[in-house]
Amino acid sequence: MASIELGPFPDVAGHEAATTLDAADRLHPFAARFVPTDPDLIYLDGNSLGRLPAATVRHLQEVVEREWGAQLVRSWPDRWWDLADEVGSQIAPLVGADPAEVIVVDSTSVAILKLTVAALNARADRRRIVTDDLNFPTDVYATAAAANLVGGREVIVVPSADGVHGPVDDIIAALDEDTALLTLTHVAFKSGYRYDMERLTRAAHSVGALVLWDLSHSVGAVPIDLDGAGADLAVGCTYKYLNGGPGSPAFLYISERIAPEVENPFSGWWGHESPFAFDLGYTPASSIRRFQTGTMPILSLAAVETGVALTAEAGIEDLRHKSIGLSEFFIEQAHIHLEPLGFALASPRDADQRGSHISLRHPDGWRIVRAMIEHAAIIPDFREPDNLRFGFTPLSTSYTDLHTAVIRIVNLMAADLPQTYSTDRSNVT
Amino acid sequence: MASIELGPFPDVAGHEAATTLDAADRLHPFAARFVPTDPDLIYLDGNSLGRLPAATVRHLQEVVEREWGAQLVRSWPDRWWDLADEVGSQIAPLVGADPAEVIVVDSTSVAILKLTVAALNARADRRRIVTDDLNFPTDVYATAAAANLVGGREVIVVPSADGVHGPVDDIIAALDEDTALLTLTHVAFKSGYRYDMERLTRAAHSVGALVLWDLSHSVGAVPIDLDGAGADLAVGCTYKYLNGGPGSPAFLYISERIAPEVENPFSGWWGHESPFAFDLGYTPASSIRRFQTGTMPILSLAAVETGVALTAEAGIEDLRHKSIGLSEFFIEQAHIHLEPLGFALASPRDADQRGSHISLRHPDGWRIVRAMIEHAAIIPDFREPDNLRFGFTPLSTSYTDLHTAVIRIVNLMAADLPQTYSTDRSNVT
Repeated sequence: MASIELGPFPDVAGHEAATTLDAADRLHPFAARFVPTDPDLIYLDGNSLGRLPAATVRHLQEVVEREWGAQLVRSWPDRWWDLADEVGSQIAPLVGADPAEVIVVDSTSVAILKLTVAALNARADRRRIVTDDLNFPTDVYATAAAANLVGGREVIVVPSADGVHGPVDDIIAALDEDTALLTLTHVAFKSGYRYDMERLTRAAHSVGALVLWDLSHSVGAVPIDLDGAGADLAVGCTYKYLNGGPGSPAFLYISERIAPEVENPFSGWWGHESPFAFDLGYTPASSIRRFQTGTMPILSLAAVETGVALTAEAGIEDLRHKSIGLSEFFIEQAHIHLEPLGFALASPRDADQRGSHISLRHPDGWRIVRAMIEHAAIIPDFREPDNLRFGFTPLSTSYTDLHTAVIRIVNLMAADLPQTYSTDRSNVT
Repeated sequence: MASIELGPFPDVAGHEAATTLDAADRLHPFAARFVPTDPDLIYLDGNSLGRLPAATVRHLQEVVEREWGAQLVRSWPDRWWDLADEVGSQIAPLVGADPAEVIVVDSTSVAILKLTVAALNARADRRRIVTDDLNFPTDVYATAAAANLVGGREVIVVPSADGVHGPVDDIIAALDEDTALLTLTHVAFKSGYRYDMERLTRAAHSVGALVLWDLSHSVGAVPIDLDGAGADLAVGCTYKYLNGGPGSPAFLYISERIAPEVENPFSGWWGHESPFAFDLGYTPASSIRRFQTGTMPILSLAAVETGVALTAEAGIEDLRHKSIGLSEFFIEQAHIHLEPLGFALASPRDADQRGSHISLRHPDGWRIVRAMIEHAAIIPDFREPDNLRFGFTPLSTSYTDLHTAVIRIVNLMAADLPQTYSTDRSNVT
């Protein structure tokens, strides 16, 4: 098929509304802080991989050419050795934590494994781990792996009634005196459902269980108050709203209150109190650094520095304000233009129950997403079986982007779409 | 103190010998393939952090600006998703493995943990793990952590008689029918002792144990034949002789022979057969990819690509030839100039028993290393209690570098050294 018309479009009222909202948006200038993409491209997948901040290009050049190329090993004591602590401290205010409670570590999955084993060891007399089926699959795999490693533990996966809303009451009902850990994702990866962190944490504590929150889909877009909610443990991804780059390492949080009860089960030299003494006996560092294992991937870690700095500069309250504005505007435009074409909202309608992405369902979702990417210069993503997921990155997404995207989808649906795309869906991330 | 004289020096015979060796060195031109450092600097720590290849600067710019900045999530299916497999396949010929037997994963420590737990599970009826005290401490920590996770296992650390040579006979004597795993570093991090991989592997197999080799200090400088030696499992670091950059991710090897017996105990979505089906049930990939856990740090991984390519281009046989040449020349120069000043060789004298670094002992080692770095523009490293470690990177180290370094050390020892340096030795990596 020929490419569809990319704009402008005849929906004057919608376009004017978007223009007015953009003009009033205090964060609008932040879009210029990212390296430009193809000017036609509308990127609605910053919840999967955040865009590249211009400051990151300069920073990585400095890290690669001066710190590595010229300074070589001297950069370890000068800067790299403490970088994971420092970036953790930068992230701390975004999640309502003390700087000493957060550190950047391995991948999110490995971080979940570490903290889950640690939590199970800290509640050695309890057999159950509770989660739900809106959790991201790797969280469930890692939780099951941790249960296996510790042995004799059972993972309870509470089902959601509609696949959209978290089964909060059923989760609370599943907690009992035999529950070691409640492990949930703060904002669900598919529907965008946002859990009430404080209520669920309180419920877990009321039976003596610990709580692990995965903040991957909320950090940088949703205000989070781990300390305020009384949370115990958390992990989060840095390559989504924190714009840390592909596969950048995860962070973990351990409440100072719970810290004396948990030990890192994956000991390695980076968590040693005196790694350069090269003792064969392991003595864990006294700080949260004891949850490190091996040497951190410095280039990937350095990119997180500038990504987090941009988020901090914008301010999480303004980011949330705009995120809600974008989401509401998109839902309204989708209601007007897309629902008549067979799309249905697959996210909570109430902004208080959402993060910063929404899903639309369409029976032909896979084919439509492929056509959007290949013919309409829009990048959302697809989640089985029929979810078109749209991420709103308040730092770089504009209201005009959203209006244009909706109208392009209308034009795409009216066009003669290719009847088939590869059935290999592994290539949509 | 004032800086010492950096050259030229009156040792005409030594200088001429170095010049002649450089002129005959087929690999000499490879030094120009690295980003230049301060021209006075003699870098003898490439066994800790390899230098920055010029090709890596260009490659990272492409990965950052085009793949991330412009292509965004489209780079996952286009390139990133398979990158860890591809770089693993690039490394395979350097370690005598089939491409399907090697993959890049997490940090070296996490890779050791994974493979050790996997090995212990594959030998569930055996209680003992054998290693020695020349092993790198993180290997011992991770081995102990793995033993703890599996439970009921004992780690036997065989002592070296002199701290220089591996206690090979004692290791073999320690292997018995209750031994699940022999885990050793191929080239010892401190003395540079090189183990006879084939002999030790055969000894372990004769009692039914598995073997895990850590190749961190040998890969890229020493020919390795894992398949030929009948090895079972291996890990290796990419930021030393492979020049992958600070903290670049490790690789692991699983022999095709043993693969059906081992499972990844750290399951995560990157090891799933169909990660984008988002099934809550974990189905491991059928390839070595099932040993992945979380999302790989792509920027750090991409730097490994060009580092490995440079090593492969030079050829491991020529690299080894030059590595031996450099080591022998340095030992000879140290014998002439440094032994009279109280330095003693703390590495095997026989090149067949060495990797590509050597250690000298000196009672005042810490102070001398600090002075070398700060006043003589030489970067070796220090290893407790009294080891000055000199790494010879055959891609970039010249014979003239080594001669100049030795003479500068002579001048340094004759100068009025500062009597004290910080007692905090954590800042020498």
